[in-house]
Amino acid sequence: MKRVGRLTLMALLLAAAGLCFAGNASAKEPRISKETAQCLDCHEGMPGIVSQWEDSAHWNAGVGCYECHKADKSDPDAMEHYGFQVAVIVSPRDCGACHPREAAEQEASHHAKAGDILNTKDGLLGQTIGGEPAVAVGCRQCHGSIVKVREDGSLDPATWPNTGIGRINPDGSKGTCSACHTRHRFSKEQARQPESCGKCHLGPDHPQKEVYEESKHGILYRAFKDDLNMDHPKWIAGEDYYDAPTCATCHMSATPNQGVTHDVGTRLSWNLRAPVSKRTDNWQQKLDSMKDVCSACHSSPFVEGFYQQLDAFIGLYNDKFAVPAKEIRDLLMEEGVISKGNFDDEIDWIYWELWHHEGRRARHGAAMSGPDYAWWHGIYDMAKAFYNHLLPKAKEACEKAGKPEVYEKILAKYIDGRPEHQWFTKGFDPKRIEQIKKYYKERYNQDVK
Amino acid sequence: MKRVGRLTLMALLLAAAGLCFAGNASAKEPRISKETAQCLDCHEGMPGIVSQWEDSAHWNAGVGCYECHKADKSDPDAMEHYGFQVAVIVSPRDCGACHPREAAEQEASHHAKAGDILNTKDGLLGQTIGGEPAVAVGCRQCHGSIVKVREDGSLDPATWPNTGIGRINPDGSKGTCSACHTRHRFSKEQARQPESCGKCHLGPDHPQKEVYEESKHGILYRAFKDDLNMDHPKWIAGEDYYDAPTCATCHMSATPNQGVTHDVGTRLSWNLRAPVSKRTDNWQQKLDSMKDVCSACHSSPFVEGFYQQLDAFIGLYNDKFAVPAKEIRDLLMEEGVISKGNFDDEIDWIYWELWHHEGRRARHGAAMSGPDYAWWHGIYDMAKAFYNHLLPKAKEACEKAGKPEVYEKILAKYIDGRPEHQWFTKGFDPKRIEQIKKYYKERYNQDVK
Amino acid sequence: MKRVGRLTLMALLLAAAGLCFAGNASAKEPRISKETAQCLDCHEGMPGIVSQWEDSAHWNAGVGCYECHKADKSDPDAMEHYGFQVAVIVSPRDCGACHPREAAEQEASHHAKAGDILNTKDGLLGQTIGGEPAVAVGCRQCHGSIVKVREDGSLDPATWPNTGIGRINPDGSKGTCSACHTRHRFSKEQARQPESCGKCHLGPDHPQKEVYEESKHGILYRAFKDDLNMDHPKWIAGEDYYDAPTCATCHMSATPNQGVTHDVGTRLSWNLRAPVSKRTDNWQQKLDSMKDVCSACHSSPFVEGFYQQLDAFIGLYNDKFAVPAKEIRDLLMEEGVISKGNFDDEIDWIYWELWHHEGRRARHGAAMSGPDYAWWHGIYDMAKAFYNHLLPKAKEACEKAGKPEVYEKILAKYIDGRPEHQWFTKGFDPKRIEQIKKYYKERYNQDVK
Repeated sequence: MKRVGRLTLMALLLAAAGLCFAGNASAKEPRISKETAQCLDCHEGMPGIVSQWEDSAHWNAGVGCYECHKADKSDPDAMEHYGFQVAVIVSPRDCGACHPREAAEQEASHHAKAGDILNTKDGLLGQTIGGEPAVAVGCRQCHGSIVKVREDGSLDPATWPNTGIGRINPDGSKGTCSACHTRHRFSKEQARQPESCGKCHLGPDHPQKEVYEESKHGILYRAFKDDLNMDHPKWIAGEDYYDAPTCATCHMSATPNQGVTHDVGTRLSWNLRAPVSKRTDNWQQKLDSMKDVCSACHSSPFVEGFYQQLDAFIGLYNDKFAVPAKEIRDLLMEEGVISKGNFDDEIDWIYWELWHHEGRRARHGAAMSGPDYAWWHGIYDMAKAFYNHLLPKAKEACEKAGKPEVYEKILAKYIDGRPEHQWFTKGFDPKRIEQIKKYYKERYNQDVK
Repeated sequence: MKRVGRLTLMALLLAAAGLCFAGNASAKEPRISKETAQCLDCHEGMPGIVSQWEDSAHWNAGVGCYECHKADKSDPDAMEHYGFQVAVIVSPRDCGACHPREAAEQEASHHAKAGDILNTKDGLLGQTIGGEPAVAVGCRQCHGSIVKVREDGSLDPATWPNTGIGRINPDGSKGTCSACHTRHRFSKEQARQPESCGKCHLGPDHPQKEVYEESKHGILYRAFKDDLNMDHPKWIAGEDYYDAPTCATCHMSATPNQGVTHDVGTRLSWNLRAPVSKRTDNWQQKLDSMKDVCSACHSSPFVEGFYQQLDAFIGLYNDKFAVPAKEIRDLLMEEGVISKGNFDDEIDWIYWELWHHEGRRARHGAAMSGPDYAWWHGIYDMAKAFYNHLLPKAKEACEKAGKPEVYEKILAKYIDGRPEHQWFTKGFDPKRIEQIKKYYKERYNQDVK
Repeated sequence: MKRVGRLTLMALLLAAAGLCFAGNASAKEPRISKETAQCLDCHEGMPGIVSQWEDSAHWNAGVGCYECHKADKSDPDAMEHYGFQVAVIVSPRDCGACHPREAAEQEASHHAKAGDILNTKDGLLGQTIGGEPAVAVGCRQCHGSIVKVREDGSLDPATWPNTGIGRINPDGSKGTCSACHTRHRFSKEQARQPESCGKCHLGPDHPQKEVYEESKHGILYRAFKDDLNMDHPKWIAGEDYYDAPTCATCHMSATPNQGVTHDVGTRLSWNLRAPVSKRTDNWQQKLDSMKDVCSACHSSPFVEGFYQQLDAFIGLYNDKFAVPAKEIRDLLMEEGVISKGNFDDEIDWIYWELWHHEGRRARHGAAMSGPDYAWWHGIYDMAKAFYNHLLPKAKEACEKAGKPEVYEKILAKYIDGRPEHQWFTKGFDPKRIEQIKKYYKERYNQDVK
């Protein structure tokens, strides 16, 4: 006993001594460069960011204001600032000076290309239907702006501030590390939290955050967040934590068999964003990488069963709704029932939201185990759009155009000839309807038709 | 003083000694059976679930892999596994071997019957309008699958994995304890958190989670979660915690006057899921049980006032909207204006969502003190569906069918003859309109019509 | 070595002694008045609220049941209660006896006037389209009821319980402190949490809570909540906490340069609730107060850029959508195409939600950095309402009324003559459409029309 007591005391004293040395060292050999010290002299008036930085690993490593914000005179956004050449934007290229692997992975990722989409239909939607200021405050805050430097070297306020993940920086690099590692803590722990991803991965058209929250994974995260060791540098699923995965766990972080990556698409075997779902390139390798994550907590039959259910679900999405809806709209355009323009017919809007909103909600809900999203916000909403909006509007449009035969053609090809759609013209199975009425009568003690 | 010091020291030493003995005891008389030890030898490759279990009360009680997963050769899902007879599924009947009271209560509850609904209109919707894979990934993940065992003894991946609360297990038992007590921690604390219930009780048709979160109860839960002693075995409202209730508090957990129950409906005096709200059987006794929970923190006039407001609200839902909407649709069917089939007229969809979506949101919002759900997502959405969708579509359908007199009949019976609906044909009170315009003019400094 | 050990022991003993003295002091000079002690004798049966109060600063200050609930015989809601004159409601006037500055600020605030709106179109909506019980359970739980005292001195249960922020109390005072400082802890910490404001500031028509949660501010709040010192009496942004702001930080709390205020509108330079957005009175001073908050963590160019983007966004909302939509509806009324009544035409509903729902979501999203709300729930939804609902319904209504020339007039004035709307009749830029199709082809490996 006595020996234990003495050893404990020794340990405590050594720890205390260690702290003293650390303190002394810091005092004698300052972590802070003299340039950074000069920055701090003036920037005390922004106490928030200084304190954030003082709590960061950067402070600990002696990386201060100047080390990140210093610029070369030839940099497009360099500006003279009280005798220093500095830049407001610290780009992934700048971060890459110390974090080369992370920067290279990020540059190769789909994230870095997030700005390109603003040249697509989504971008056209934003600019034409919305307008430039809505694109600046909306779209670009996730997708990234093309940051412009004005004549005087300052950043164009139409393009800055911006932390969109695909931002195009004055130095030509793409992305911004602070999209996830928020300045000026640049915390691993914060970036690993689902809320960080949820800044952009949420909403009517890609509700990953909402799906995660309603999934078992998200429920366990809320319950055991404090046990997840999220501030540990080494953060291996099943070893350093085991109660719940976050977005990072499955898409980025290490397992006993694979390392962390900042290239976020390397474990995705389906492209569930496209109108018709497609396998990704090298999907089998990517699927294996993801299954390796699952296996930290789930048995192989569990994982196989999950993917079997998912793949059947994606098949249903494609074959029952996505492809027929596309072909029906194409036919209406080809037959001159609706114009070939975009968003000038109600049917354009219905089709667009069917795959881009409801269809993604369904697929993300299925892929991340959120049953409410897979069904109510997903397939149910999509089926309603298909049967209760697309088809009746197609009928109406054909009648208005004096071409009822086009709608007959649609019914023949897509509805009557297909067992999964026949109910629409032939009605529900009357036996099942009777069963249901009986059930409701018992359950609610009232007639339900 | 000196004595206190000495006693403190003694206590510390005794505690330390206790820890040593505990350690020794564990080493000498292992908690882990030799069968479980053998399971662990191989299943180290799934570190997550092993670690979860090591943190569980089960570990502490010596209940390991084998104790739960062991099977009898005659069990329908028994399989030979490296010399052992085991089953993947641990059913409520298995859990009931050690937890008989909880298993019996659960079996008697509405939860255990959650799978039955898949044979009703909801189920028909899923199968017909959606499709089997959507039912598997959507509906059944909450309601429960009928787990099928294949010839080779493995579980059919179309029905497994599944943790739906009304799952029908190979042994015939209904439900799954891990729906709420997630494997492999099986934690009381986790099951008491509102997120656990929110896996299924959320979304457009039963947003209990969302209503709770916006209620004072949910606000206080977020603020004082760490003070709620949620890991205490004894967890009596007002005694062991007093800052906020969770779902469990009101619907399941103990009060000074009643014990915990796993039969979740025993405190519900209204059936607010049905098209027309009805009192439950023995509702007065159930209401008394609920009021007993309220009284841990609220005075009797407060509780009485709350229920008076709620009951008036339910009356409004039934009498102003639910019953007339049902009768109007029935009339349109009887008069041959719309078909008697389900979901083949726009009016079918409107009526269905009116009670099943908007009407439930309203009622759950009112019953759990979420004003935004009671009004905006509830009565407002329902009134909009009634006045701006149901009635205009009824008019249109009557005109199309060449039976405008049917709509006249509807207006005469349901609108003009009833003071609560008269505004629809006779307009708003002009005096109040003038007041409002004046108010807006002052408030917003602009004309609002 | 030995000295350290002894000092530690001394410290422990002194701490223990301190605790003893504290205990003794409390026993000898009770904090609790003899009246309150008498209240507690009976109200032990409501253990929750007693324990909440025991954890409050009120307990510490000797402010108990009687100190707050005592009443004067002449008070309208005074009631005789076991020999005491008490009142159920503790109004802001009562709280103001000890907290005069806070009560005065609250009384001057927009919050105190929140009940007035129930006399406006919103109120008319509630009463006419909904009904009295829906107003009681919905609207008034946020806006506040007019609490009525019955003949017997008890509170009318149609108006109580209620904690709406603009409640009109029996003593004539407006508001209720417990709307934010929930009884019976009345905690600063709780009121500073975003959930407290989110009881009312959420939902389809003013989703401030949702916007905050998806903003960087909300993401950081979730990540670093425990570091924010939210229970500190002094709580100055950048000094006492620096990782994230809450609602209170920006709208109420102290900065190094300004004090805390309970008048919530003093930093708002825009009225973003009105149909057409307007500057507030003295907006420049209010804007300076808000920018002072921003500057705790953000540089001046960052803040200026943010406001430049916001102001352009508000301009877009007003000029492209809000003003034309209003004028189009006005024109349809003036030309007799639709009735002058409210909510009796589909166009009334479309216009109402355009500014009151979608338009507010857009503006709040922009003002609080929630890109998903600014765009998808905001401008996108509004543009869809404008192009895909308002204009087609206007066309249909004009045709039905036999006045197609009115729609021609609308197109000429609001669409064809304005570059931001021309696409609606002239189509998208065909070059951009080709670019987009190419992009989609590469991205999704499929044709998208």
